[in-house]
Amino acid sequence: MPEIATRLAQAGLEIPAESLSDLTRYPMNAVISLGGCTASFVSPDGLVVTNHHCAYRSIQYNSTEDRNLMETGFLADGRGEELFAGPGSRILVTVSAEDVTPKILGGLADDLAGYERYQAIETREKQLVAQCEEDAGHRCRVSAFYGGLQYVLIKQLEIRDVRLVYAPADGVGNYGGDVDNWMWPRHTGDFSFYRAYVGPQGEPADHDAANVPYRPKHYLRVASRGLKRGDFVMVAGYPGRTNRYRLADEVESAFEWTYPERSEAFRKWLDVIETETADDAEARIKYAGRVSGLNNALKNYQGMMESYAKSDVVERKRALEQALGEWIRADATRQARYGTALAQLQQLVKRDLAQRERELYYEFLARRSDLYSAARTMYRLSRERQKPDAEREPGYQDRDVQRIRERMTRMDRTFDPDVDRAAWRTALTAYAATAPSQHVEEFDAWFGFAGTSVDEAALDGRLDEMYGKTGLADAETRMAWLDAEPDEFRKSDDPFIRLAVAVYDRDLQLEREEKELAGEFDVARPLYMESLIAFRKSQDRTVYPDANGTLRVTYGHVEGYSPRDAVYYEPFTTVAGILEKDTGVDPFDAPRGLLEAIEKRRFDGYADGSIGSVPVDFLSDVDTTGGNSGSPTLNARGELVGLLFDGTYESIIADWDFLPEVTRSIHVDIRYALWVMDNVDGADALVEEMGVRTESTAER
Amino acid sequence: MPEIATRLAQAGLEIPAESLSDLTRYPMNAVISLGGCTASFVSPDGLVVTNHHCAYRSIQYNSTEDRNLMETGFLADGRGEELFAGPGSRILVTVSAEDVTPKILGGLADDLAGYERYQAIETREKQLVAQCEEDAGHRCRVSAFYGGLQYVLIKQLEIRDVRLVYAPADGVGNYGGDVDNWMWPRHTGDFSFYRAYVGPQGEPADHDAANVPYRPKHYLRVASRGLKRGDFVMVAGYPGRTNRYRLADEVESAFEWTYPERSEAFRKWLDVIETETADDAEARIKYAGRVSGLNNALKNYQGMMESYAKSDVVERKRALEQALGEWIRADATRQARYGTALAQLQQLVKRDLAQRERELYYEFLARRSDLYSAARTMYRLSRERQKPDAEREPGYQDRDVQRIRERMTRMDRTFDPDVDRAAWRTALTAYAATAPSQHVEEFDAWFGFAGTSVDEAALDGRLDEMYGKTGLADAETRMAWLDAEPDEFRKSDDPFIRLAVAVYDRDLQLEREEKELAGEFDVARPLYMESLIAFRKSQDRTVYPDANGTLRVTYGHVEGYSPRDAVYYEPFTTVAGILEKDTGVDPFDAPRGLLEAIEKRRFDGYADGSIGSVPVDFLSDVDTTGGNSGSPTLNARGELVGLLFDGTYESIIADWDFLPEVTRSIHVDIRYALWVMDNVDGADALVEEMGVRTESTAER
Repeated sequence: MPEIATRLAQAGLEIPAESLSDLTRYPMNAVISLGGCTASFVSPDGLVVTNHHCAYRSIQYNSTEDRNLMETGFLADGRGEELFAGPGSRILVTVSAEDVTPKILGGLADDLAGYERYQAIETREKQLVAQCEEDAGHRCRVSAFYGGLQYVLIKQLEIRDVRLVYAPADGVGNYGGDVDNWMWPRHTGDFSFYRAYVGPQGEPADHDAANVPYRPKHYLRVASRGLKRGDFVMVAGYPGRTNRYRLADEVESAFEWTYPERSEAFRKWLDVIETETADDAEARIKYAGRVSGLNNALKNYQGMMESYAKSDVVERKRALEQALGEWIRADATRQARYGTALAQLQQLVKRDLAQRERELYYEFLARRSDLYSAARTMYRLSRERQKPDAEREPGYQDRDVQRIRERMTRMDRTFDPDVDRAAWRTALTAYAATAPSQHVEEFDAWFGFAGTSVDEAALDGRLDEMYGKTGLADAETRMAWLDAEPDEFRKSDDPFIRLAVAVYDRDLQLEREEKELAGEFDVARPLYMESLIAFRKSQDRTVYPDANGTLRVTYGHVEGYSPRDAVYYEPFTTVAGILEKDTGVDPFDAPRGLLEAIEKRRFDGYADGSIGSVPVDFLSDVDTTGGNSGSPTLNARGELVGLLFDGTYESIIADWDFLPEVTRSIHVDIRYALWVMDNVDGADALVEEMGVRTESTAER
Repeated sequence: MPEIATRLAQAGLEIPAESLSDLTRYPMNAVISLGGCTASFVSPDGLVVTNHHCAYRSIQYNSTEDRNLMETGFLADGRGEELFAGPGSRILVTVSAEDVTPKILGGLADDLAGYERYQAIETREKQLVAQCEEDAGHRCRVSAFYGGLQYVLIKQLEIRDVRLVYAPADGVGNYGGDVDNWMWPRHTGDFSFYRAYVGPQGEPADHDAANVPYRPKHYLRVASRGLKRGDFVMVAGYPGRTNRYRLADEVESAFEWTYPERSEAFRKWLDVIETETADDAEARIKYAGRVSGLNNALKNYQGMMESYAKSDVVERKRALEQALGEWIRADATRQARYGTALAQLQQLVKRDLAQRERELYYEFLARRSDLYSAARTMYRLSRERQKPDAEREPGYQDRDVQRIRERMTRMDRTFDPDVDRAAWRTALTAYAATAPSQHVEEFDAWFGFAGTSVDEAALDGRLDEMYGKTGLADAETRMAWLDAEPDEFRKSDDPFIRLAVAVYDRDLQLEREEKELAGEFDVARPLYMESLIAFRKSQDRTVYPDANGTLRVTYGHVEGYSPRDAVYYEPFTTVAGILEKDTGVDPFDAPRGLLEAIEKRRFDGYADGSIGSVPVDFLSDVDTTGGNSGSPTLNARGELVGLLFDGTYESIIADWDFLPEVTRSIHVDIRYALWVMDNVDGADALVEEMGVRTESTAER
C-alpha cells in the first residue's frame, strides 16, 4: 500500500490513500454490489444510484404492454410508490475481506491433486462460508486470486428488499441503444435509482410493506465542481473477470475458436427470438433483456475479434513464455521450484481445449431452454438435498434455495414457450452437428440423434410432445417440484423432467471429470503465477490480480484518445450532440422535453463553463471491465462525479490484453444525471436528497 | 484587387497578390483545364499532374480484360511508351479573359425579352467566339457571371494529343473507393500524370507519333518544405458550378424534389448496370467509369440531403429575400430600379418548376441510352448543317464536329447493348409513370404508352425490335451517319433513327419554350443579382460570383474540424492509417510493395518531422467544388504542395450554402505522391523531371 499511496498522490489523489484500502470507511463502504453490477449509496436514506442498464431487469419486471416503463421511464411519487425491483434483486454491502489462504491451502499435501484436491479446497471453502454466514443477513464467499495463489473470504450484508425509485425513459437511459453500445462519442444517460429497504429493526428482510429505508454507514457526496480534461478520477466497484495472464494457447483458442463459434450461436439465437416475437408485444417485453444482453455480447465479441485481428497478442504471449522460461532456467533455485510450471500448465490447457466443442454446444443446451434448465436445476436440488448440507454442491445448499425459488418465480416474466422451443430447437440442431466424440449418448438417445444428421420431423415430433405435455411452464407446478423428492422426479411423466433424470448420472460424471481437471489447474496455475510474479518483480513490474468480482479501486485521468489515424475523440460529449444524433426513431429518440430543454439552453447551473453546455458522458483511462457497470466515478477528493457504464470498442480486448493508448472507460457525467432529473423529469426531490441545491431549494 | 491583395497578405501569401490576377504569369498560367477537371504543368517538357480520378477514363480506355491498368497502374517505360489518352482528351491552357459585357448587352432594348433576347445574346456570343477562334488551335467561349450581369470571353489553347505517363494502381489512386469517397480520414493517392504533345512546330495537332512534348510557358515548382497545420494554401483551378444565390423556392425544390428523385433514378440505374455486368468482366470495365460516377453522385446527393435536413438554409434564404425587399423599399431610387426584381424572378422560377418532372424524366431518356443519344445527336447535326455555320445551335457548329465524332468513336469503349437496353428500359418505365401532362405525345406514340401504365410485353417487344435491328452499335455505321443528309435519316429504317426523327419537331418546340424562359431569366436574374450586390455592399460584404468553369483562385489554411460532438478530425492523415484500414479486399487493398515500405518505415526523406511519418492527405478550408478536382494546391510562395481532389461529406452542401465551420477541401500531399513514385512505383525519373532530388540523383 505505501508504494501505491505514493503513486496515487502523484496521480492527483487528494485524500489519504489509506482510506481506499479500508472497506469499512468512506468512500469504499458506500460502494455496493447488485450481483453483476456495481452501485453506491448516495443518501442517508439508502438511496442507491447505478446504471440504467443495471436496473433494466427491474424496469422490465414492472412493465406491461399497457404500462411500458422501459419506454416512459418511471419516477416514484413518494416513497410509498417505489416499486419492488423483483425477486432475486439484491444489494450486497461488503463488510469485510480476510486473507484465508492458510486456511484453504494449509496442510494440503503437495502431491494431493485432481479431484481430491478440488474437493478438499471446496470443503474448506464451504466451511469458512458457513461459519461466516452464521451472522444472520450476510452472504459470504471465498474468492481466489492469481488462479489460486491467494484466497480471500468476502463477507457481505445482503439486502433483499430493493425498490425502483427512478429511471429515465429509454430515450435517455438507453440513448443510442445497440448502435452506440461500446461506441464513442456517446450520449447515454445510463443512470437509475434504487432504494434499499430493511426490516423495522434494520435487519435484511424479504420484500414487505412494513420495511423501512436502510440507513447506510456511509454514502457518497456529490462533487460540487465538475470535471475537466486531465483531472484525476477513480472508480470503485466489483469488476467481474479479466484474463490477463492466460497462456498463448488459451488466448489463441478463445479468439480463433470460442468467440467466432459463440458469435454464430448467439446470432442464431437472436434471430430466433426476433422472428418469434415479431408479432407479439408481450413476448417482446419478456425477452427485451435477453435480446439486449445478446446484442451486447455479440458486439463485445466482434470488437474483441477485430482488435485481435490487428493485434500481436499471441506473439507477445509466446515471447513472454519464452522469456519466463529462460529466466527460470538461468537460476538453479528458480529452476528447482518453477522448472516444470509452464509445461505442466500448457499440458492441462491442451487437455481442457480438447473438449471445448462439447463444453460449448452441449452446455448451451442446458441454458437455451428455460424449461429444460428448470427441470435440471430442480432435480439436482432434490438429489443434493439427500446429503448433509455441508456436503452438497455449492449452489444447492440451504443458503441457495431461496435464490433458486426466486429464479423459478421470476421465470414467468422472461419466458414464452414458443420462443423457448424455437431457441432450443436451434441449439439442438447445432449440437447434433458437432463431432460424435463431443456428443452425450444419453442425451442423443432421448432425441433419437444418430451421427451428425438430424431427422427434422422426428425432432419436431419430440418437441411437440415435450412442449405439449410439460407442466413446468406453470409457476405453481414449478413451486411444487421445488420441494419434491428424487423418487417423485423419477416417476414423473413430465418430458423435461424425464430428460433431466435420464442424463443426470452422465452429467455428474462429466462434472467430476471437469473437477478432476480443475484440481490439476489448482496446482499448476498458482505455481505459474508465482513464477510470473517473481519474474516481473525482477523487472521491477507489478502483477495486478485478475478481476474476480471483489471490491477494488482503479484510478486514472479524464482523457480522450485517437481511435485511428487523423481522428481524435474529445473526452466530453455535450447535450448539443443529442440534437445532432436525434432522428426521432429508436434508439435516437430522446424525449420531447429533453430536446426542448437543449434547444432552449435551459441549463440552470448544470452547464460547464469551459464547454458552454451540459456535459453528457466522458472518457477516462481507468482500467475496468464488466461488473464495473454502475460503479461510482470519484474525483481526487473522493466525491461522486459520474457513473462508469461502458468501455470503448477498442477497449473490449482489454479483458485479455490491456493497451493503455486506446483503452478508455465511458462514464455518464453526474451533472447530466442531475440536470435531467431536475430540469426534465421532475425528480428534483431526489437531487435534493443527494444534498444538491436545486432551483426549488433556492426558492424556499 | 488591392482590397483582396491586403487580405491575401494578411492570410499569409508571400508572393505579390497581383501575380495571381495575371493569367499569363506564374503560377496561374501553369494551371490548365482537362474539361471537367483541373491539372497543371510540372515540367518544361509538358508533364501534367492531375487526379487519378480525372485520368480514370484514359486509364480505362487503355485497359482490357487481360491488361487491366486500373488494377495494376501504369508507368510508361520512356516517352515512346506513353499511351494516347483517348479521343476527346484535351488540355486547355487559358490564354486570355476579356470582359465583353458591353459587346454582349450593349444596345439591347430593355424590353427585348424572351426568345428574341436569348437569340440576340447567343448570336453575339457566337460571333465573338468565331472571331476569337480565327487564331488556330484555340478554343473560345463566353462565360456569364452573376447570372448574366457580366460576360467574359475566355480564350484557351487546345492541346489534342494527351498521353498517359503514369498512374498508380487503383489500390493507391482510388484507395478507399466509394466507401471513403467524400470522407475523412482519407488515404487516397489521387494523382496521375499526363504529357501534352503538339505538332513538330509546336502547334496543337491530332494524336500522331511524330508529335513532340509541348513546352509550356510556365510550370509549377514543387515546394521544398512540407506543409503543417495552419499554413496558408491556395488552390487555382476551374471550379464547375455553384448555386449560392438561388432563391428559397429553388433551393427547396432542389432538395425536396430534384435530389430525392434523381437519387432514386440513379440508384435504379446503378442496380441495372450491376445486375447486367455481374457475369461479364468486359462489360464491367466498360461501365466502371459510369458506375463510379453514379456512386459519386449518389453519395453527393445523400450528403447534401443530410446536411439540408439539419440546416435552416431555406429559412435563411427567405429571411434574406425579406430583408432585401425591405432595403429596396426603404429608398425611392432603389425601389425604382429593383422594386420588381425579386417578384419577377420568383415568378419565372415558379414557371420553371412547373415542368421539372418532364425536364427530369423525359430528358433522362435521351441520356440513358447511348444508342438513342447517338441517333438524336447525329440527326440534329444533319439538320443544323443545313444552316450557315453562324446560325447553327451551339454544339453543332463546325467547331463542334470533331468532338461529336470523337464521342461517337469512343462510345465503343463504354457501351454494351444489353446494359444499354436494360438501363433504358428502367428509364422508360419511370418516364411512363409520370403525370400525363409531363409526357411527350410523339414519344408515347412510338412506344404505345397510354396514361401512366405500361404494357410490359409490348415494351419488351418494341425494345427487342429496336436493339435487334439497329446498326448504331457499330462504330463504322455511326461514322457513316455523321456525314448523312436529313433525307437519308428520314428514309432510314433504323428504329433509333426513326424515333429521333419522330420526336425531332416536338423536341425543338420544347427547346424553344425553354429558350423563351431562359431569355426572361437573362433579364430577371442579373437585375436581382445587381440588387443583392448593392444590398451586400451596404453591409460592407462582397458577393463572389458563382463558379462557372473559369480559372480562379481560392485561398485558406490547413485546418482540421469537428464533424460532430466530441470528434475532432486532424488535418493530416499518415501512411500508418493505410495499414490500419487495409483489409486486402478492394477498396482497401494497397499494393504489397506500398504496405511493406510503410511497415519497414522506408520513408527516405519524405516523412514529416513533426508527425514522424509520410503524410498522405490533408484538409484545408479553401472554397472549392467539382471541376476543381486535380487543381494544384500552392503554398504561400506559390509552390506545389498537393492536389485538391475532394471535399468532406459535410462540405457537399457548400455548392448551395457555404458554412465555414465544417466546409473542408481534401488534398493529397505532394510528399505522398513523390514518395510512392520514388519508393514504390519506380517513377523516380518523373520525380526528377519535376526538379525534385531523389536518392538516385544523390547517387550520381
